[in-house]
Amino acid sequence: MASQEIEQLASTLARLPGLGPRSARRAVLWLVKKRDTALPALLEALEGVQDRLVECDTCGNVDTQNPCGICADPRRDRKSICVVEDVADLWALDRARLFTGRYHVLGGKLSALDGVRPEDLNIANLLGRVEEGGIDEVVLAMNATLEGQTTSHYIAERLEEFPVRITQLAHGLPVGGELDYLDEGTLAQALRARRPVQ
Amino acid sequence: MASQEIEQLASTLARLPGLGPRSARRAVLWLVKKRDTALPALLEALEGVQDRLVECDTCGNVDTQNPCGICADPRRDRKSICVVEDVADLWALDRARLFTGRYHVLGGKLSALDGVRPEDLNIANLLGRVEEGGIDEVVLAMNATLEGQTTSHYIAERLEEFPVRITQLAHGLPVGGELDYLDEGTLAQALRARRPVQ
Repeated sequence: MASQEIEQLASTLARLPGLGPRSARRAVLWLVKKRDTALPALLEALEGVQDRLVECDTCGNVDTQNPCGICADPRRDRKSICVVEDVADLWALDRARLFTGRYHVLGGKLSALDGVRPEDLNIANLLGRVEEGGIDEVVLAMNATLEGQTTSHYIAERLEEFPVRITQLAHGLPVGGELDYLDEGTLAQALRARRPVQ
Repeated sequence: MASQEIEQLASTLARLPGLGPRSARRAVLWLVKKRDTALPALLEALEGVQDRLVECDTCGNVDTQNPCGICADPRRDRKSICVVEDVADLWALDRARLFTGRYHVLGGKLSALDGVRPEDLNIANLLGRVEEGGIDEVVLAMNATLEGQTTSHYIAERLEEFPVRITQLAHGLPVGGELDYLDEGTLAQALRARRPVQ
């Protein structure tokens, strides 16, 4: 590639997760070919979020408004809070469109290895929200990893003093999962949590 | 995802080749997290090329200047022209840093199926460049596909009337290629073009 600007764009794109140097070059070529349609559209979309991204003071979600769209939505159930590790988890859960309450983003998980302690996470805020009252249920939706579950237990303990129902996501077979390919841990969880057939 | 602007960015990114909806969301999250460093850098890189991309009148390369950086480079050998199908091929060849001459981009390949005829390609310009004189060699660097080779033969025929050497890329084993995994066509070409060991 000849021009420095084009090289610059390729190396900037290559830093996006999911794109390497080779696919970034392909993306640049595609943008170069569609320089009258796709390139301005991408620029506009980036400008749309640039300088406008803020962290929601209530839940820690990232949005272009504060409080975020979910916290501000009057149709959302104000009586239940779903606690997640990260903004990515919030977005993933919200795509399932099943949970109608609001969220709380911890911003990480407890980890002795990485030196993440409870005071490094957004836990005080969560306790504050529960303490304010009006909350019936707190759903702990941490990842099903060792650290996620440790965080989950810790928060459950801290919430014990409040009159709220504390629940966690079910563990078991994923949709489409075949027993043959699943690990023993998942199978054990699925067996332990077996339910009567309705 | 809550905000419309963030959704918009995700769907715009998802249209890049190599990124799907899921990896585009991951890229958006990454940009959201690095909103103070990576996001402005990407914006700046896009703005750097926006409105400045032009097609070189001489060779058909896309660059931020016209004539393009390669045609304008005085260190480039003006006596040889390498003919390629597409800008992507030009960039790929130029990364090999072996060819010191200049290029000519056809903008496609002859194809009866897609209805691409000689007059749809940038062939007249190529003949003009050769006719002007001062050219010793024309390297035909089409893809080793049926259509690429058809195009190659057609151009070789059109160039016959000029006093230039017409060459084409060697066919044979790719670097790192194992005989066991190569197709018969490649092996036949490699055998046919065998050379004495030096």
